[in-house]
Amino acid sequence: MNKAIFSIIGAIIIFSSGVLAQNSQNVDYTKFVNVFIGTGALDANSLSGSNFPGACMPFGLVQLSPDTREYPDDPCSGYDYKDSTILGFSHTHLNGTGCPDLYDFLFMPYGGDKKWQAGSDDGKTKGFRSHFSHSNEKAYPGYYSVVLDDYNIRAEMTATEHCGMHRYTFAKADTYHLIIDLEHTLIKDSPYRYSKIISAQVRVVDNKTIEGYRIVSGWAKLRKVYFRAEFSRPFDSQVMKAGSNEFQNIPVANHSDLKIILNFDQNNNMPLLVKVGISSVSAEGAKENLNAEMKDFNFDGISVQANKAWNKELSCIDISGTARQKSIFYTGLYHLFIQPNNIADVSGNYLATDNSIQNAPDKKHYSTFSLWDTYRAAHPLYTLVQEDRTAGFINSMLRQYKTYGYLPIWQLWGTENYCMIGNHAIPVIVDAFLKGIKGFDYEEAYQAVKASSTTSHKNSPFNVLDKYGYFPEDLQTQSVSLTLEIAYDDWCVAQMAKKLGHEADYKFFLNRSGDYKNLFDKTSGFFRAKDSRGEWINPFNPLEYGGNGGFPFTEGNAWQYLWYVPQDVPSFIDLMGNDQKFVEKLDEFFTLDAKPGDVNGNASGFIGQYAHGNEPSHHVVYLYDFTSQPWKAQYYSAKIMRELYNDQQSGYSGNEDCGQMSAWYIFSAMGFYPVNPANSVYCFGSPQLENATINLANGKQFKVITNNLSTDNIYIQKIILNGKPYQKNYIAHKDIENGGVIEFFMGKTPNKKMATYEKPLMIAGEL
Amino acid sequence: MNKAIFSIIGAIIIFSSGVLAQNSQNVDYTKFVNVFIGTGALDANSLSGSNFPGACMPFGLVQLSPDTREYPDDPCSGYDYKDSTILGFSHTHLNGTGCPDLYDFLFMPYGGDKKWQAGSDDGKTKGFRSHFSHSNEKAYPGYYSVVLDDYNIRAEMTATEHCGMHRYTFAKADTYHLIIDLEHTLIKDSPYRYSKIISAQVRVVDNKTIEGYRIVSGWAKLRKVYFRAEFSRPFDSQVMKAGSNEFQNIPVANHSDLKIILNFDQNNNMPLLVKVGISSVSAEGAKENLNAEMKDFNFDGISVQANKAWNKELSCIDISGTARQKSIFYTGLYHLFIQPNNIADVSGNYLATDNSIQNAPDKKHYSTFSLWDTYRAAHPLYTLVQEDRTAGFINSMLRQYKTYGYLPIWQLWGTENYCMIGNHAIPVIVDAFLKGIKGFDYEEAYQAVKASSTTSHKNSPFNVLDKYGYFPEDLQTQSVSLTLEIAYDDWCVAQMAKKLGHEADYKFFLNRSGDYKNLFDKTSGFFRAKDSRGEWINPFNPLEYGGNGGFPFTEGNAWQYLWYVPQDVPSFIDLMGNDQKFVEKLDEFFTLDAKPGDVNGNASGFIGQYAHGNEPSHHVVYLYDFTSQPWKAQYYSAKIMRELYNDQQSGYSGNEDCGQMSAWYIFSAMGFYPVNPANSVYCFGSPQLENATINLANGKQFKVITNNLSTDNIYIQKIILNGKPYQKNYIAHKDIENGGVIEFFMGKTPNKKMATYEKPLMIAGEL
Repeated sequence: MNKAIFSIIGAIIIFSSGVLAQNSQNVDYTKFVNVFIGTGALDANSLSGSNFPGACMPFGLVQLSPDTREYPDDPCSGYDYKDSTILGFSHTHLNGTGCPDLYDFLFMPYGGDKKWQAGSDDGKTKGFRSHFSHSNEKAYPGYYSVVLDDYNIRAEMTATEHCGMHRYTFAKADTYHLIIDLEHTLIKDSPYRYSKIISAQVRVVDNKTIEGYRIVSGWAKLRKVYFRAEFSRPFDSQVMKAGSNEFQNIPVANHSDLKIILNFDQNNNMPLLVKVGISSVSAEGAKENLNAEMKDFNFDGISVQANKAWNKELSCIDISGTARQKSIFYTGLYHLFIQPNNIADVSGNYLATDNSIQNAPDKKHYSTFSLWDTYRAAHPLYTLVQEDRTAGFINSMLRQYKTYGYLPIWQLWGTENYCMIGNHAIPVIVDAFLKGIKGFDYEEAYQAVKASSTTSHKNSPFNVLDKYGYFPEDLQTQSVSLTLEIAYDDWCVAQMAKKLGHEADYKFFLNRSGDYKNLFDKTSGFFRAKDSRGEWINPFNPLEYGGNGGFPFTEGNAWQYLWYVPQDVPSFIDLMGNDQKFVEKLDEFFTLDAKPGDVNGNASGFIGQYAHGNEPSHHVVYLYDFTSQPWKAQYYSAKIMRELYNDQQSGYSGNEDCGQMSAWYIFSAMGFYPVNPANSVYCFGSPQLENATINLANGKQFKVITNNLSTDNIYIQKIILNGKPYQKNYIAHKDIENGGVIEFFMGKTPNKKMATYEKPLMIAGEL
Repeated sequence: MNKAIFSIIGAIIIFSSGVLAQNSQNVDYTKFVNVFIGTGALDANSLSGSNFPGACMPFGLVQLSPDTREYPDDPCSGYDYKDSTILGFSHTHLNGTGCPDLYDFLFMPYGGDKKWQAGSDDGKTKGFRSHFSHSNEKAYPGYYSVVLDDYNIRAEMTATEHCGMHRYTFAKADTYHLIIDLEHTLIKDSPYRYSKIISAQVRVVDNKTIEGYRIVSGWAKLRKVYFRAEFSRPFDSQVMKAGSNEFQNIPVANHSDLKIILNFDQNNNMPLLVKVGISSVSAEGAKENLNAEMKDFNFDGISVQANKAWNKELSCIDISGTARQKSIFYTGLYHLFIQPNNIADVSGNYLATDNSIQNAPDKKHYSTFSLWDTYRAAHPLYTLVQEDRTAGFINSMLRQYKTYGYLPIWQLWGTENYCMIGNHAIPVIVDAFLKGIKGFDYEEAYQAVKASSTTSHKNSPFNVLDKYGYFPEDLQTQSVSLTLEIAYDDWCVAQMAKKLGHEADYKFFLNRSGDYKNLFDKTSGFFRAKDSRGEWINPFNPLEYGGNGGFPFTEGNAWQYLWYVPQDVPSFIDLMGNDQKFVEKLDEFFTLDAKPGDVNGNASGFIGQYAHGNEPSHHVVYLYDFTSQPWKAQYYSAKIMRELYNDQQSGYSGNEDCGQMSAWYIFSAMGFYPVNPANSVYCFGSPQLENATINLANGKQFKVITNNLSTDNIYIQKIILNGKPYQKNYIAHKDIENGGVIEFFMGKTPNKKMATYEKPLMIAGEL
């Protein structure tokens, strides 16, 4: 334990005491949320959390938020806290991703005679940009506002599930304009990203109504996005900017580079309100969404309604802790609940994976499945606090299977983009199945899970795996990461097969889930790449990083991927030698600071080789629970919570990744984490909250009480579950679901008796 | 008259006499069609006709034809007569265009163990190419066959409106395969063309059925095309080629570079039949189309049905003439009737211009509107021989107006691609309206015509025109061509406005139709570009060519665009000075051989500066009818028919352009041509057919009888209409529609009395 570091942290963290215990009925949890967390980077070596500060509803289609970047790339949220100008407000944003897309329909008000700026190399002068200052920003769940200093306009935003509402208040009488930019999109000229606006249309319905759409091929291969904007006051005239042409007062325009500027007479001091319906389906859908959710221009009413909706969702866990902890915790829940996004219209119509339009009977079609990230902790957390929606997520994923042949890998706005590797919809579905979550057809889900593990597709050539027992790097790159991650998915398939009585399948997939062993090199003690002749690929440097192809490891190195056998840690420990050797290797992992020249940009938030800024590391501290030294899980989890999260814009040590970084914190702060995200078991770390009450969907509560918390007291001394001493290093999902109270008693030194506590060794038969 | 040339032609052309007079009831007109006409270039300086030899139905969705080019560019039909290998057979082709697209779903059978060739720089080794020879090709309307020499397979094709049928006959027992290539598309790497397959899917429904689709952004900005293929015999196994991966026997695959290889057991000698339904709408649509049109594998039945359908269409004009003339004439009609294509499914569902799916009540939605070409003569000819479909074409164009805001410029597969200039749906609609064609809503059509002339859009910035009275080249390139062509469109709008009683509109558009005068430079005697200060742009060289932007003239030079005032030739003659000066300039046009270094590739088929290979010249010979020397129209029209058309693969002197090159011949061979394609008047040239009977939709017949025809007798001596002497240089549409007989009497010297015949000076009030 590095005391020097801990004394510094101690000076920062001030634990509050009992006064924070609250009645969840009367609490406004949204007050704890700081929507600016994750809008900047921790340090020069980290990625931004890539979160946006704008207004949205839980799991909604619309995220109405300021864009500070002309063609966003990094941060992918379009907003960087360190920027000083705003380009406008667009209606759709991704939360915490490492790839950019969306940014549909940028609205920007401006005053006077300012001329359009064509943009510059740094992307910071385009359009009708305005300076702004953070001191004039005010934002909370469901609401965002800022003063546009260049024009002295206060811009306020709120949202419903499918719509955004803008309120622009002008400080003085002047000529005012509003531009709607349909060409604003992700970065266009990156060598590995692609954005093309295939076409766009703006139609002037009347002098208070504009409709439009654009067809975009970007990270989502193809989207057609519609809007309908209604204004509280008529515009006097308008100009269409179609490429380099400007057309005055024409009723409709079509162009791939299309903008419309509305000119308003501003002789009175009335604010201008705009309500904007969005649809992934049709112009009619956008209109129906608007009619259903925003009948009038009651901005404050909509804003209160959005905030209430957020408060309801955030009340799923009531905690006591420091202000800092609450801010991180509830902002984390907020980020967790921004997506998956329901892209269906109020009618239930939605864009399917094959780009057809279909209808969801339950009016919900969830997308934005960043599964390589979120299967690890976000989805297990949803099973605890979003049980109903978990079935909705799964039914939505099954719709991809039906039109596309296999489950999502990374699904964005209904379409598959194949980002990252593995088929990690499988653990999500199997976890929900094994936890007994209702609302989806288990047998159909099994067929989807099986098809996704047998129908070869991009980065999943099962024919190769079945032939070699591993992915040879010469036949399939990212081969080590793939072999390990698909072995885990296979274990999941096997568990579902067994429970549903598909015995032959069970044997097949359980057997294939052991394929990871074929890439373990006992000499070096690492998983390594082989070629198709079965030879290790040399030279081998376990510190060397790969990105997203052309190297055996994905966004990491052999050190980080060494730990990926969550399905069978005991066998893995045997493979490594024994408990002692395993612990020594883990210790080395957390202390070996050596870095090669070229570290993948996603790897950040380092503790030795551990990189909390990216997901492959996320379960690793909890592997100590499987060893003779479980207190090191407590040590490192506390250290990460304290050092690699904060309640400022730099709150995350890497991309927030659609709730996964937050889910890690939320679980860990409560004292447990799912090393194997599909075996209904949570391994203990170092609980950091005085109290946490999970309000379960079944009406029961599960309380976590942590006694003797202090800066130094990071080690569990004793555990009481429902009044009885508890000597396990984990808790089972069913013990949480049944409701109850777990009490942790903390101290400043490890309780070495925990070496004898029952380890989280659940295997298939015991689930 | 250049006698040297004529004596050569005389040696080639042998006029037949009366024995060819036939009863149209019993004639198989399809026998006169040579589907290979236009599949090659006239000479090294010409473009290919860009016609395809494959099987299709009149105005059908499917054109099942061999592709000899890997990524077709020129010829755009995918087939070049001079090529010696075939890559496969794809289901959709354009007829005679200058830009490439379609080529959906390439099927290719092959035998033995041949391996896939990745392709070479010349695009001639890719895939499973086979050599073939023209001597083994047999094709007529509705049928195409060839022997694939490398595999000794006879491949036969036929089609219904929405489906293609293949019959492959194998010479010996072997292992045979069929590849379906979803990645075959237009050229991808051209600097000015764009093709991207956004995604594609193949699904194995069962061992006799494959479904698939692809989403392509090409010349048509976005298409999603579906197929369903059913096989007469089961395949034993299959391999998906997804990019560089091969997957054996997987049920479904998604990839932007996707192929499936089906392996057939070939121990018997049964041919393999494949029926393929195509849809622009959905997989269900492709299946419905197939079920409706190809219930079984009756290849010969389908082929006979297709041929009968063609014969019915071709019987609209019955002619007597030489074998050469009949071949050119009926192949021309065949090319004229390939498009516009009905892209609606049998259900009436179709892809609308805004990429939505809509339904056509009449089950017809025509697209492939190459209007800059076809408004000149093809559409006027449709009003004579496809009167019912003309209303269908117009209703289809009006649907673009409804979803897109203005009428088609160049519409491909339902979507607008803005190819070429002007808004020449307007003359098509106005012509049909003025001719009294029923079946569309005149007032709605007028609103569309007016909107298309007032709603500024790409290459039609009416705000600029209204401000300057011309297009200044510094504000809108192709400014001279645009000013001239839009002036003509405006004249058309004015005529429709007047007849419908929109007097103010009539005045506005009639006034704007005179804008051409603002660009006439009396000093040089040419239309020239001005800038926005009103200054002539210098230097000016009337021989200098433009392409499709960056120059005042479109695909031509100032000489070729000098003649574009079809709406008001008398005023134009006045502008040029007088009749004598006008004739002198015309004479110079046809004799000035000077060529600058860089002639636009579309300009070919030269007679002096006249370029029959591209459309701006097409009406020019008939301008002599407006002068004191109408016999020169007779001279040059005869010369063009004889020198610039032939009955071989090199039959056209440039791209056939969706029927326009053929329509020029068909009109001209009958002795008349519409200089103004919307004033219901046809100007006389040199009739070249012994007899031509137009079977009109109203049940009447209009007969053209040409007496004393010979190689030398190209000049009209006397005209008798319905038994009475006729002293006009034109015939009115109503005289044709009323039925009757016109007799021309020919001689070898001009009848100079024709200088006194009534000139085709109809203007608005007389229509």
